[in-house]
Amino acid sequence: MEISLKELAARLGASLRGDGEIRLTRVAQLTDATPDSLSFLGDPKYRRHLAETHAGAVILTAADAEHAPGAVLVSDNPYLTFARAARILHPRDPVVGGVHPSAVVDPTARIDPSAWIGPLSVVEAEAEIGPGAFVGPSCVIGRGVRIGAESRLVARVTLCEGTVVGARALLHPGAVIGREGFGFAKDGERWERLPQIGRAVLGDDVEIGANTSVDRGAIGDTRIGDGVKLDNHIQIGHNVEIGDNTAIAANTGISGSTRIGRNCTIAGAVGMAGHLEIGDHVHFTGMAMVTRSFPEPGLYSSGIPAMPSAEWRRNVARFRHLDELTRRVKQLEASIKTMKQTTGQGDC
Amino acid sequence: MEISLKELAARLGASLRGDGEIRLTRVAQLTDATPDSLSFLGDPKYRRHLAETHAGAVILTAADAEHAPGAVLVSDNPYLTFARAARILHPRDPVVGGVHPSAVVDPTARIDPSAWIGPLSVVEAEAEIGPGAFVGPSCVIGRGVRIGAESRLVARVTLCEGTVVGARALLHPGAVIGREGFGFAKDGERWERLPQIGRAVLGDDVEIGANTSVDRGAIGDTRIGDGVKLDNHIQIGHNVEIGDNTAIAANTGISGSTRIGRNCTIAGAVGMAGHLEIGDHVHFTGMAMVTRSFPEPGLYSSGIPAMPSAEWRRNVARFRHLDELTRRVKQLEASIKTMKQTTGQGDC
Amino acid sequence: MEISLKELAARLGASLRGDGEIRLTRVAQLTDATPDSLSFLGDPKYRRHLAETHAGAVILTAADAEHAPGAVLVSDNPYLTFARAARILHPRDPVVGGVHPSAVVDPTARIDPSAWIGPLSVVEAEAEIGPGAFVGPSCVIGRGVRIGAESRLVARVTLCEGTVVGARALLHPGAVIGREGFGFAKDGERWERLPQIGRAVLGDDVEIGANTSVDRGAIGDTRIGDGVKLDNHIQIGHNVEIGDNTAIAANTGISGSTRIGRNCTIAGAVGMAGHLEIGDHVHFTGMAMVTRSFPEPGLYSSGIPAMPSAEWRRNVARFRHLDELTRRVKQLEASIKTMKQTTGQGDC
Repeated sequence: MEISLKELAARLGASLRGDGEIRLTRVAQLTDATPDSLSFLGDPKYRRHLAETHAGAVILTAADAEHAPGAVLVSDNPYLTFARAARILHPRDPVVGGVHPSAVVDPTARIDPSAWIGPLSVVEAEAEIGPGAFVGPSCVIGRGVRIGAESRLVARVTLCEGTVVGARALLHPGAVIGREGFGFAKDGERWERLPQIGRAVLGDDVEIGANTSVDRGAIGDTRIGDGVKLDNHIQIGHNVEIGDNTAIAANTGISGSTRIGRNCTIAGAVGMAGHLEIGDHVHFTGMAMVTRSFPEPGLYSSGIPAMPSAEWRRNVARFRHLDELTRRVKQLEASIKTMKQTTGQGDC
Repeated sequence: MEISLKELAARLGASLRGDGEIRLTRVAQLTDATPDSLSFLGDPKYRRHLAETHAGAVILTAADAEHAPGAVLVSDNPYLTFARAARILHPRDPVVGGVHPSAVVDPTARIDPSAWIGPLSVVEAEAEIGPGAFVGPSCVIGRGVRIGAESRLVARVTLCEGTVVGARALLHPGAVIGREGFGFAKDGERWERLPQIGRAVLGDDVEIGANTSVDRGAIGDTRIGDGVKLDNHIQIGHNVEIGDNTAIAANTGISGSTRIGRNCTIAGAVGMAGHLEIGDHVHFTGMAMVTRSFPEPGLYSSGIPAMPSAEWRRNVARFRHLDELTRRVKQLEASIKTMKQTTGQGDC
Repeated sequence: MEISLKELAARLGASLRGDGEIRLTRVAQLTDATPDSLSFLGDPKYRRHLAETHAGAVILTAADAEHAPGAVLVSDNPYLTFARAARILHPRDPVVGGVHPSAVVDPTARIDPSAWIGPLSVVEAEAEIGPGAFVGPSCVIGRGVRIGAESRLVARVTLCEGTVVGARALLHPGAVIGREGFGFAKDGERWERLPQIGRAVLGDDVEIGANTSVDRGAIGDTRIGDGVKLDNHIQIGHNVEIGDNTAIAANTGISGSTRIGRNCTIAGAVGMAGHLEIGDHVHFTGMAMVTRSFPEPGLYSSGIPAMPSAEWRRNVARFRHLDELTRRVKQLEASIKTMKQTTGQGDC
């Protein structure tokens, strides 16, 4: 893809300073850029790279634009404008409708003529695949699954029976949506499976990372809101609900029936117990252990950051006696108080 | 599936109170139930929903049955009876024997005529697949694998060479059983792989979640007992042994050669070091960090629950000096003791 | 495979004591060995098994060899020699070049005649597959992917567009290399994807475990050095760099742009924040929470080991007030100091 800076500015709705005839072919970081590259300055701490970049043009805030040596696209949100420019310079291939001859498609499936079913994919009975959808190689689309318009299953995605995917989803390899979740009744010492008859329902503009799993509901549905972004290796238990635009980083697990609000960010390797209520605009840092509800907006954390092992061993040994230590301090306070009274010393 | 309450009671061995001619078609929660629904009351805190439910019938204990407005199935264990009723009302499709024409099956594989091999699955040499087994789409069944009667591989399951699966297993998409585990010898700075010549052996009634991995043994086998239930994204290292009816929740990892007893429950995101001995009836709460053996039954925990980040930062900073703090308290205790002796104050 | 001890000694470059005509067919542990087995003594604590083993021959250090009752191969590094012997006694099947008729291979892909493409695998346009490479069943090899000589994709491996794999790699089922990582710009409350235009580049002798994911670079590449070994269920974010011979155990996650040096070992379920610098010869114990850079060699840890839950609850409750407790101790120290001055007692 090659485009003039002038045309790119017009498509992005950004104002242009400098030579609009510059031809751009790619995006790059300031330090790696070539004259055909578009770059950007997001974090002010990299401002020193601005003077030395070979980029043909840079996306900057109006304030930074004053100091730029070359052509500039001015934006209030350079990173967002850069993301959009990158999609223009590095477009996906257009989806060409059709079914690869090696795919196995049930005759009752309804596939829009503008959708693509890739090689060695399976589409089971009564599945519906919307306009412009892309089903990459080796996917499994279960019975009665619905996939919305322009959604993209990169490769090797599994959508179990009854799963619903909205429009413009992006599902990465190894994702498993709608498997029967972990529900058992106890029969003496044995576990008896509780059939899981709900569904997994994904809104529009949802993204599901590689090897991430979203279980179907036990009774009723698991619900992933519009604009939710899930990274790799995330486990979403049955009947979890996640509000719109919440983003979750890799390796996190959300236990069954927990409800998470809108616009939350949950960092990597967080663990959440089941049946919790997490409000809107709640943020957890990495590896947080969430054992109670957090209905109020805020930033929450837990865990012990790494330290030299010898130091850690000493502190951990003391942690095992922290309750006792606290009692000893209380005892000391009582002794001091008594001694002060005895010796006639007041606190002030 | 439609069934009369009378017939359902007979099949479940539950006693019936009320109109046995009621027709049921599905299970539902008390709050969502319709007149063709069967519901149940498990947790007494939801008893208030009983008066208002539209369910055609409800499964209750004898004590709760006194207060029910409508038809009742009486059970000592309503949740278990509900699980069984749900399987009757929502049966799986019966397995029809055969091999989909798109499957690739080695001529030396022995597949029972009542087993199904789904589309685009691969069955390698000398594999044996038992009566009534269901191999869904896009599975890979390695050389010499054995799958017991009525086991179900939902879709996209990988069983590596030599893996043994018992009867009535349920294996979910993305499961990888019997890959060569993480065993290396050091050659200077390089790692040299130790060939892993054992197997992964799963008992009867085992369940393996989505994207869960069970490595084969290095020498000797990895063993998963009868009735073991593994949730999604679990890692089981080489030569681990798990006793009968132990259940493990998602995102947990068990390192090599650790042995876990029978009837344990291990919550989500637990990590276990290698070469440990965990007894029978041992229970770990979520995110527990298991670095030593726990031979005795009991409930064990670790980790710091999440709190507001500002509070957490202050406490964590102090944790780094907990050993020092403990020494300071000891020093204070000594000073107080000396002062008491000097001033003639006794402890009692 | 059957081999004489004499021939095995010659192939391993190990010196032989005892009967070189012994025929060996397998490796085994000392306690399970039969007369056709080769065993070894790694850990001195198992030396007592040496007298009772039925092994035909044992690999030992020169010092241990003095006490061996039977035939011995002498080695400075018995475990390494054992690993090599195991590969001789339990060789992989040789790779026979060809393409299974059920594979779907783009005509522009360049596949070395000595490489094997297994059943139901997909090879997209312009992929290059080197001599002696083995692509097992149900793999997806994206557009422009390069796979080096003698690399082995066991089964169901996904290599996304542009991924580069060096020579002699071993990639396990469920691995996903080169998916577009977790990069978004904020547009009000919405997330807008930043196209990820870098690649995932793996060196020689790399191993990637089951269901492990390595994301491609956002701009520039994610780089996995020569000899790096990754266990199962590991998440490697975009633009991470991992130095040669570093080994990482299962369930660990490394966030974007973190750089890890050479010869590190990272145990299971470790979490690393993004944009960190980890030096060479850095070692983390299991479940370590890595929130800052560790440029210096050393062993680092964090986390609270599991303990009985009642005890844990009491200590955790105190942890929430650890900052306050520390202040109270400080206050006590000040009181004591004042009292000592008042009463004329010195510290020594």
